[in-house]
Amino acid sequence: MAERVVLAYSGGLDTSVCIGWIAEQTGAEVIAVAVDVGQGGEDLDVIRQRALDCGAVEAEVADARDEFAADFCMPALQANALYMDRYPLVSALSRPVIVKHLIAAARKHGATTVGHGCTGKGNDQVRFEVGSAALAPEIKVVAPVRDMAMTRDKAIAFAEEKGLPIDVNKKSPYSIDQNVWGRAVETGYLEDIWNAPGEDVYDYTQDPTVQRDPDDVLITFEAGIPVAIDGVAVTPLQAIEQLNKRAGAQGVGRLDMVEDRLVGIKSREVYEAPGAIALITAHQELENVTVERDLARFKRQVDQRWGELAYDGLWFSPLKRALDAFVLDANSVVSGEIRLRLHGGRAVVTGRRSEASLYSFDLATYDEGDTFDQSLAKGFVELWGMPTRLAAARDERLKGSKGAK
Amino acid sequence: MAERVVLAYSGGLDTSVCIGWIAEQTGAEVIAVAVDVGQGGEDLDVIRQRALDCGAVEAEVADARDEFAADFCMPALQANALYMDRYPLVSALSRPVIVKHLIAAARKHGATTVGHGCTGKGNDQVRFEVGSAALAPEIKVVAPVRDMAMTRDKAIAFAEEKGLPIDVNKKSPYSIDQNVWGRAVETGYLEDIWNAPGEDVYDYTQDPTVQRDPDDVLITFEAGIPVAIDGVAVTPLQAIEQLNKRAGAQGVGRLDMVEDRLVGIKSREVYEAPGAIALITAHQELENVTVERDLARFKRQVDQRWGELAYDGLWFSPLKRALDAFVLDANSVVSGEIRLRLHGGRAVVTGRRSEASLYSFDLATYDEGDTFDQSLAKGFVELWGMPTRLAAARDERLKGSKGAK
Amino acid sequence: MAERVVLAYSGGLDTSVCIGWIAEQTGAEVIAVAVDVGQGGEDLDVIRQRALDCGAVEAEVADARDEFAADFCMPALQANALYMDRYPLVSALSRPVIVKHLIAAARKHGATTVGHGCTGKGNDQVRFEVGSAALAPEIKVVAPVRDMAMTRDKAIAFAEEKGLPIDVNKKSPYSIDQNVWGRAVETGYLEDIWNAPGEDVYDYTQDPTVQRDPDDVLITFEAGIPVAIDGVAVTPLQAIEQLNKRAGAQGVGRLDMVEDRLVGIKSREVYEAPGAIALITAHQELENVTVERDLARFKRQVDQRWGELAYDGLWFSPLKRALDAFVLDANSVVSGEIRLRLHGGRAVVTGRRSEASLYSFDLATYDEGDTFDQSLAKGFVELWGMPTRLAAARDERLKGSKGAK
Amino acid sequence: MAERVVLAYSGGLDTSVCIGWIAEQTGAEVIAVAVDVGQGGEDLDVIRQRALDCGAVEAEVADARDEFAADFCMPALQANALYMDRYPLVSALSRPVIVKHLIAAARKHGATTVGHGCTGKGNDQVRFEVGSAALAPEIKVVAPVRDMAMTRDKAIAFAEEKGLPIDVNKKSPYSIDQNVWGRAVETGYLEDIWNAPGEDVYDYTQDPTVQRDPDDVLITFEAGIPVAIDGVAVTPLQAIEQLNKRAGAQGVGRLDMVEDRLVGIKSREVYEAPGAIALITAHQELENVTVERDLARFKRQVDQRWGELAYDGLWFSPLKRALDAFVLDANSVVSGEIRLRLHGGRAVVTGRRSEASLYSFDLATYDEGDTFDQSLAKGFVELWGMPTRLAAARDERLKGSKGAK
Repeated sequence: MAERVVLAYSGGLDTSVCIGWIAEQTGAEVIAVAVDVGQGGEDLDVIRQRALDCGAVEAEVADARDEFAADFCMPALQANALYMDRYPLVSALSRPVIVKHLIAAARKHGATTVGHGCTGKGNDQVRFEVGSAALAPEIKVVAPVRDMAMTRDKAIAFAEEKGLPIDVNKKSPYSIDQNVWGRAVETGYLEDIWNAPGEDVYDYTQDPTVQRDPDDVLITFEAGIPVAIDGVAVTPLQAIEQLNKRAGAQGVGRLDMVEDRLVGIKSREVYEAPGAIALITAHQELENVTVERDLARFKRQVDQRWGELAYDGLWFSPLKRALDAFVLDANSVVSGEIRLRLHGGRAVVTGRRSEASLYSFDLATYDEGDTFDQSLAKGFVELWGMPTRLAAARDERLKGSKGAK
Repeated sequence: MAERVVLAYSGGLDTSVCIGWIAEQTGAEVIAVAVDVGQGGEDLDVIRQRALDCGAVEAEVADARDEFAADFCMPALQANALYMDRYPLVSALSRPVIVKHLIAAARKHGATTVGHGCTGKGNDQVRFEVGSAALAPEIKVVAPVRDMAMTRDKAIAFAEEKGLPIDVNKKSPYSIDQNVWGRAVETGYLEDIWNAPGEDVYDYTQDPTVQRDPDDVLITFEAGIPVAIDGVAVTPLQAIEQLNKRAGAQGVGRLDMVEDRLVGIKSREVYEAPGAIALITAHQELENVTVERDLARFKRQVDQRWGELAYDGLWFSPLKRALDAFVLDANSVVSGEIRLRLHGGRAVVTGRRSEASLYSFDLATYDEGDTFDQSLAKGFVELWGMPTRLAAARDERLKGSKGAK
Repeated sequence: MAERVVLAYSGGLDTSVCIGWIAEQTGAEVIAVAVDVGQGGEDLDVIRQRALDCGAVEAEVADARDEFAADFCMPALQANALYMDRYPLVSALSRPVIVKHLIAAARKHGATTVGHGCTGKGNDQVRFEVGSAALAPEIKVVAPVRDMAMTRDKAIAFAEEKGLPIDVNKKSPYSIDQNVWGRAVETGYLEDIWNAPGEDVYDYTQDPTVQRDPDDVLITFEAGIPVAIDGVAVTPLQAIEQLNKRAGAQGVGRLDMVEDRLVGIKSREVYEAPGAIALITAHQELENVTVERDLARFKRQVDQRWGELAYDGLWFSPLKRALDAFVLDANSVVSGEIRLRLHGGRAVVTGRRSEASLYSFDLATYDEGDTFDQSLAKGFVELWGMPTRLAAARDERLKGSKGAK
Repeated sequence: MAERVVLAYSGGLDTSVCIGWIAEQTGAEVIAVAVDVGQGGEDLDVIRQRALDCGAVEAEVADARDEFAADFCMPALQANALYMDRYPLVSALSRPVIVKHLIAAARKHGATTVGHGCTGKGNDQVRFEVGSAALAPEIKVVAPVRDMAMTRDKAIAFAEEKGLPIDVNKKSPYSIDQNVWGRAVETGYLEDIWNAPGEDVYDYTQDPTVQRDPDDVLITFEAGIPVAIDGVAVTPLQAIEQLNKRAGAQGVGRLDMVEDRLVGIKSREVYEAPGAIALITAHQELENVTVERDLARFKRQVDQRWGELAYDGLWFSPLKRALDAFVLDANSVVSGEIRLRLHGGRAVVTGRRSEASLYSFDLATYDEGDTFDQSLAKGFVELWGMPTRLAAARDERLKGSKGAK
């Protein structure tokens, strides 16, 4: 029996050609799997049929939108995951869920190999392959674009020669990846980092400079997860979708940055993630209200490392799992409501309300009702500063003794 | 001879009363020192005269604006200092420079004690007292509001009884502190964290929702310090002042947050720091372009700790000094130009240009001219994922052996 | 009805006097609680009777040895808790369990206050009071030695005047605290840090320089917890006790260090913790064998912070709880056997064996059977070094352009 | 003109064969460079002649011992560099200095390539190649053992065929690397991690279980560097050599561990580093005495990362340089004397003495002369514990409200 390869299939030129390319080069049967992570675009049944037309022996589509939102985006929200303090990990989050479905399909269909259409200079190859190694250490990987010299020109020639049902002339000036958590755009004139992105780059967000009325939204969190918007219960997926729409309409969530890729180079990326940025902004402020200071301080380090791991393709790694345990514990008290004003490209917290609040009006107020005992402060300040005082006295002393020589 | 106390003098009710209060309670002679850190407001000579009218035996004013900008704000910029990822440390930066001048005055006038008008529940008492302990371990501190029961009501009564030249009825609904790096507003209705701040709270920034033309600014950095704006050389102070004006006019730099105070409580703070936020935004992106990845990742931890120390009153501590050495070294390559668009409350980087850039078009491009050798990636990905793969295989094995029992 | 105070009672001079002192100064009824954490020494019933003889209205003893070992020492072992990389947190671990029993007694007896005999310059006052605040935020604390001027001389005078059944002349030259996890010795001639400790300082350990036969011990761990010694099942308490005996007999676990106290001063401490050091040594090496690299690296930071929190009196803090979640997850695979040679003051691992091992002979060997594919390394090394290479090339370039000026 | 390759030459079988192998495979002229880092063994002139006899067109030997001690071992000492809390980075430190000399020779001789004899599964290939990329980004690397299929069997056949002056039968059962900072042993029966190492494995250290008189040594540090031993001035190299001898004679510095390699596998390593361990032990305690608490706490993280970078081949990386700036600053006060007892395999600090000491007898003592003001402690403890207290009260409240449902 021929070996079987499960290919991550998008419906585009590259992965469509991969089907035949892999078959030709290896003699394997190719099974195409397309995973819906909220990327929109073509109907998945159309994509499925195209895979078969391109020579796949089987083709499957999986609706992973709820799973993606609940099991991948929500942990990222609880970790306030912003790579390099900015990027909410759009592609980095979707690859692990896609890999999960690839591996499931591989096991179902008795495949020994999974395939992807990534190049050798991006991060996604790492996320696919390390993800696969984690979920199925015995399964092999094939990457035609990287390892089998499948350049774009050769792919077009192959598609034309085989008469594949692909429009080889349709080409975006950009390389785009999108899902419900956000949208990533690169290449083209953006590769000159002195150029600003034009409006044509954006799709999830409206121009923030157009005048509009503000939109106030009330987000209710339970244990770090959004459970209601304006008082109406939502699933994680609905929360993201609704905020994508409302925050996107106000131009919220555009990002433009130079970024450190895992493969050791810097690249220029433009993102838009209206729902993600709105949710993270609200979540961070609810943490400010409900999470104790020392925990909040350490959690910043954990959050940073969490984001690096997700970015670096280590979603299923042992460290990521242990950090998840920390993040989950810290979020147990992050419940309450945040009022957010979406307007002019900004998502601004305008109110917080929580039964789990650690903010105490009685302790904070300078008005009547103040219960803070100021007499405690003197001793606190003295001992807090003691190590600095002793070090300063020592330095003074040493300077003196050196001066005396 | 009477003991002498050098008092940090602002010209307001509290510190004006402190002059006489300290004199009465301790018999000491009080010397008032007012330090200009760009807070604006009254003429310093007026303030100086008021101190004398209130009973100070000497009164001095010090113009510390350039020193403050160069030696306190610039290191904060190099550390991208944002306490809790948001607050650019407005008051926390000014206290150490004020203390420096207090101690200098104490030595000049033979004083044994420095005094301040802080309460016992804020952070500033710590910054004053630990700063003083660091610069002059032998000097004592007096804090009448905290330690001598000088409540507001008693202060007003004292002022009226002594006929001090203070308008005791003039009272802002807010507690405000400001300097060239920014402005902090608290108390009043802001103590209810469900309330949004109104426009009356702001002074450095215009309403960001008003339609205006955008303002593009070009900032040139050398080793992490702004040295020119739109091609014209500036001092650090000028850079901040110019950006305060231009970014403030576009409503950039408003912040509203619940914050962890050092004394263990949470408080609600509203800030505006147009110049600081514009500069930090530009500096961060120039770091993205010029700083190597591992250094950038570790620097985030260093930057966070740096901000905590400055916030916690440990400006002159040994750890702060060692972190400064790290931050300075990391900034040695942060030179180049950032184009920033200021508009609608947002400061957005729209271009970067640097001789020290680590971004390489030839390595990053997916177009012709690509010099990245993709064949290296396979081995990299395999070994990068090896620990995760081995752990996954182990976990699988263990599950198997448990299942077999 | 009189207020009631629950006092942490040791049976010694200070806390015996505290009973009457608190009663006289406050009019409260004092309930004495002695907690057995394996400190040895007098019979607890004798201690209990002494409390009553000294005026306590009630006296209780609690055998907390198993609880202490399981719930306090074992988490410390899983975190390899060594404050300043050396001190296994002897006293820091026992205070929280003592507080737990004090608070339980306070609730049982309707007390509003707990009391302790600590001074104002040590760490234990913090552990008692913050622990109490965490478990019962409403309960007050009384500390006669610190807050009621109960000096040693006054305590002796009080004891003699009241005829308390205490030998006021019996005084160790050292201040000692001990429990099953170890023993701490300070003061006396040890306060001169140039002096080495003599043999009289030690009690849990024999002189390591005496010739003896080595003792090989086999410790079996499950999820980071010792479950068998030399193949015989043990409880956590038994594991510690047996290793105290065996490692102590070989002089293992003596420590002598200058230490940073929480109150801001440095102190000199001598410890002996034969069981703790033997267990931590074994546990660390089993982690080396079973824990994945990135997790192991991050865990060092977590372990350090965990130890600082326990030392700093923050056992019941939110951050400690979140770190526990991380540590527990990381320990889930730390199962297997460690052979340890105890001899001449050293505990040396001589063998490791684990089904959860990540060490693979096939990958590690340089002999036949090597399955490591070395061809992967070239690409790995290239990309691993890419950021450094690019930064070096940039630095070279900049030097050139500067040299050319 | 033929291309020229500078080869890192040890005089052993592998690198001797490499000379001819590279020449045959590439047509290049090979220049052999042997660097003396205190590894002992054969005379370097003998090694130099052998290189020529094996076909090198040039052969050089460089005495890098002082440079290695001063510029590589001393920074490691200042960072207390112990990879995985144990391994003092023996091989990891020598590779960068060897690379420095290779690159210098390459430039002198107009070579375009450097070569090494490392395999593809160790760390040293990374240290060579990333080091080379950092010092000379334009220079290429050749690694015959890894990339040109030069297996051991083929090497022996090549040596015999060409009549190279090498005894191909002489083979240690272990793979050994050594220099003045220590000695590393691996492979053979040590690859079974259940086996304990026998005495034949060790060379720098005597059996610690043999009875001997203890050896007390006094080490004087200036700014973290040993400058005198027993009062006699020493260079860094002399300090290490003398302590290697004295600590080695007492069996100090043996290590046996399972270690995480950079290439993703775990390996088993046995080390002996008597001088390094003695010096680090002394340096750490002098830091305990002289370095302020917060700085000491953060420095542990810096030290850990420093060790990881050195281990991971990133000696010349930008992050390493920035960490060096931190470490150097922190060491500025680490001056004073440590008395160390070397005996029975243990190096134990028995005394510390420093003008820069932060230990204050007056503050620490419980005897007469105590100057610590205990009345400050109450306020300190209250505010220190405030965040935990507030969080506990909140948790209580939430539990109550949930219970009430």
